[in-house]
Amino acid sequence: VGKAKAQISISADGYAAGPNQSEEHPLGENGEDLHSWVVALDVWQRQHGREGGETTASTPIYTEATANTGAVVMGRKMFGPTRGEWTEPLWNGWWGDEPPFHAPVFVLTHHAREPQEMEGGTTFHFVTDGIERAFELAHEAAGEKDVSVAGGAATVQQAIRGGLLDELLVNQVPLLLGGGERLIDNLDPGDAKVEQVEVVGAPGVAHILYRFG
Amino acid sequence: VGKAKAQISISADGYAAGPNQSEEHPLGENGEDLHSWVVALDVWQRQHGREGGETTASTPIYTEATANTGAVVMGRKMFGPTRGEWTEPLWNGWWGDEPPFHAPVFVLTHHAREPQEMEGGTTFHFVTDGIERAFELAHEAAGEKDVSVAGGAATVQQAIRGGLLDELLVNQVPLLLGGGERLIDNLDPGDAKVEQVEVVGAPGVAHILYRFG
Repeated sequence: VGKAKAQISISADGYAAGPNQSEEHPLGENGEDLHSWVVALDVWQRQHGREGGETTASTPIYTEATANTGAVVMGRKMFGPTRGEWTEPLWNGWWGDEPPFHAPVFVLTHHAREPQEMEGGTTFHFVTDGIERAFELAHEAAGEKDVSVAGGAATVQQAIRGGLLDELLVNQVPLLLGGGERLIDNLDPGDAKVEQVEVVGAPGVAHILYRFG
Repeated sequence: VGKAKAQISISADGYAAGPNQSEEHPLGENGEDLHSWVVALDVWQRQHGREGGETTASTPIYTEATANTGAVVMGRKMFGPTRGEWTEPLWNGWWGDEPPFHAPVFVLTHHAREPQEMEGGTTFHFVTDGIERAFELAHEAAGEKDVSVAGGAATVQQAIRGGLLDELLVNQVPLLLGGGERLIDNLDPGDAKVEQVEVVGAPGVAHILYRFG
C-alpha cells in the first residue's frame, strides 16, 4: 500500500488561504501569491498540459511530492463554494472539464451524490461516511501508488489527527496574508509525532518536509 | 548604524511559546523543547560560559544572527512575570546575576524604573516612551553594532509593524505546541515586504532568514 501525503503552500504567517474566500477569490485575498513559485516550474506546467517554465531547487522536491499519485482526497470546501445538498446545475470543481488530477478524487461531504466522471481520467467520488472511509477508498483505488491530500487546511488537520497522513511538504512563501485559514492549527502535541525529513531553499519558497508518526 | 535583528524559535504550528506561561514555565507547556537544538550547539554553550556542545549546520547561521550585538530590546513580558508598578524585591530578569546579554538591554514597560546594572556587562534600562524610542536608545548604545530584539512575540510584531526590524531568523522546530503565542501573527500584508534571504536545514530545526523592507 502507498503513502498518504500532502504538499501545501503557506504564507510566512502560516495561512494556506487568504482572508475573505469567495467564488471570485477561491484562495482568499492575495492567496494566489502563495502559488507563484510553483506555477513558474516546468514540472507544474507539464502537469497542467502546458510547456515552458523553469527548473529550480523546488523541482526535485515538488516532483517527488506529487509523483506516483494514484488517488486524491479533498474537503468539500476545496472542491467548491457550494454547501448543503447538491443542486442543479451541479458544481464539478474549479478545474474545468479536464481537471489536473488524472485520478479518482474522493471528496468529503455530508451530502450524497453520484460519482462525476470528467475528462482525462479524473472521477469525483463523494464520500459521506467520514475521512477514514475516504482514505480507505483512496488507498484501495491507488493500490501501490500514493494517496495525495489536496486540502484544504481542515482536511489536512483532520488527517493528521486521525493518523492518516504520512508526509506533509510545507511550502513556506515569504509574504504576509494577515488572515484566512492556517494550515498547521487546531492540533495538540499528542496528535502526532513530527519528524523533519528535509529542508530546501528555492527562489521565493522554503520547503520543509515533515513525516508524522 | 547597525542592523536590528531577531532570531526566534517557533514550533511547526508557529508558536514562540507554549500554552499556560507561568513563573515555573516561562516558555509555557513544552516550550523549552523549542530550544533543544540551540542548547546543543557549541556556540550557545560558549555564549553561556560553558564548554562542550556540537557544531552543526545551525552553527554558522546562528552565529551570524547573534554576533555583533551591541544592545538588546525586549518586552516586559519576556523580562519577567511581574506586571504593573515595580515593587520590592525588584525582579531582575530570568537570567541570574550574570545575564547572557553582556550589553545594555532596553526593556519596554509602562512603569518607570532606575537602570539595573548586573554582572558581566548587562544593564537593564526601562523605557516608558514606546518601542521607537527603545530602538533609538538601543541603536545609540550599540553604535556600529547591531540591535538584537530578544522577544517576545508581541514585541517582534510591533517592531515589524513599525519598520524597526531589518532581519528575522525563524528557527522552525518539528513539534506541535497546540497553543500559546504565535510569532508571526497580527500582521497585515501592508505591514512589511518580506524577502527570503536564506534557508538552512539542520538537525531538529529549519532556519529561514527573512529580511523586511
